[in-house]
Amino acid sequence: MNLILLAPEQQCSLNSYDLSERQIQHVTKVLKKRDGDRVRVGVLNGDLGEAVFDASLHRVTILNLDTSPPAALPMELVLALPRPNMLKRTLLNITAMGVKKIHLLNSAKVEKSYWQSPVLEADALHQYLLEGLEQARDTQLPTIEFHKRFRPFVEDVLPSILADKKGLLAHPYQAKSCPIDIEYSCLLGIGPEGGWNEFEVEKWVEAGMDTVHLGERILKVETAVPVVISRLYPAR
Amino acid sequence: MNLILLAPEQQCSLNSYDLSERQIQHVTKVLKKRDGDRVRVGVLNGDLGEAVFDASLHRVTILNLDTSPPAALPMELVLALPRPNMLKRTLLNITAMGVKKIHLLNSAKVEKSYWQSPVLEADALHQYLLEGLEQARDTQLPTIEFHKRFRPFVEDVLPSILADKKGLLAHPYQAKSCPIDIEYSCLLGIGPEGGWNEFEVEKWVEAGMDTVHLGERILKVETAVPVVISRLYPAR
Repeated sequence: MNLILLAPEQQCSLNSYDLSERQIQHVTKVLKKRDGDRVRVGVLNGDLGEAVFDASLHRVTILNLDTSPPAALPMELVLALPRPNMLKRTLLNITAMGVKKIHLLNSAKVEKSYWQSPVLEADALHQYLLEGLEQARDTQLPTIEFHKRFRPFVEDVLPSILADKKGLLAHPYQAKSCPIDIEYSCLLGIGPEGGWNEFEVEKWVEAGMDTVHLGERILKVETAVPVVISRLYPAR
Repeated sequence: MNLILLAPEQQCSLNSYDLSERQIQHVTKVLKKRDGDRVRVGVLNGDLGEAVFDASLHRVTILNLDTSPPAALPMELVLALPRPNMLKRTLLNITAMGVKKIHLLNSAKVEKSYWQSPVLEADALHQYLLEGLEQARDTQLPTIEFHKRFRPFVEDVLPSILADKKGLLAHPYQAKSCPIDIEYSCLLGIGPEGGWNEFEVEKWVEAGMDTVHLGERILKVETAVPVVISRLYPAR
């Protein structure tokens, strides 16, 4: 936890917020703050600044919010739904990197059971996103959309996303090398373990996506996604 | 597991290797191979090719080794010893990315107890490196050196490493932006949670390291290291 992130449901008066149990532990045990000490805070979907810690009420009162959150990445991510543990770590990592729009998509090689995982419950997802924000000292919550059917997404949703973004589909065959340090906005598509099938690649390409390969080495999805994002936007 | 990696201790005749329990599970349950089927294999510190699976003896016999492993990254990594779980995931990730020389270094903010962790036992470390190689379909085992004292490393070991490599020290203050897509070999230094202290930064800089900052967002070390490597060598 690198930031005490304050959510609307914690607000108890105009400038005061009740800390969660995790935050109390962090402030008292890790930061070793005492009554009256200042702590760095951020307001969810707002700015960052300083607050005063009230050790008896387990509460902070904001003094100022003078810093903007770090810039968002100019991209959206489409991820074929990975296995639950990988999804969890991937969401945390990409939230920390500054991705603000995430699409979770079905694909032929996604196991049906993944869609029933408790990891996909709204509260669980929200928690991973918060952890990603706390990690990177960001406050801007990403949004996640579920697309449980491949074809309606690619035919009906994708075209409007691609209206102002370049589509890059990670795919190892008949693909050019993934570009480096790009200046434009993109939609990045990452397939399931085992990859997209032929029909899927055809539909993606029909919709205007470019296939790009990521090199010879196969990485786990939770590492592969940050690595390709770093390649696309190394200086962000 | 994306590769059946065969180690010298598995060799039972000139071209045959006994599979480990994990490999048998993978070949029969995931790849669903049957007696006489071909599987992709790699020989530890050697080449990759094809072998025939013997289902009754749980053994493979190599047919050919016609493919070189993927290229290594032209860099060495110095890592202030991270907490054991982070070390494990970091080693797996950087091995998968192609780092071949890893130095684990003490630093003022490394907790003493980390040096006693079972994660640092030779068998455990070897296992994480193997998993990283299996992930990336590589065969070239990295080497790891321990440096339990900071100053002797920086004063006596570092100069010879920097003789033919540029030294880049991740440090958020008085630093320029980390370079992108470099053509030269480097030694990358990554600090502990909480960063290097002033004395340490001074010693690093005296020895010829450049301080570079990695941007506003703080990532977990197991993600930060792959992300900065991808920034330095995006096309590898």
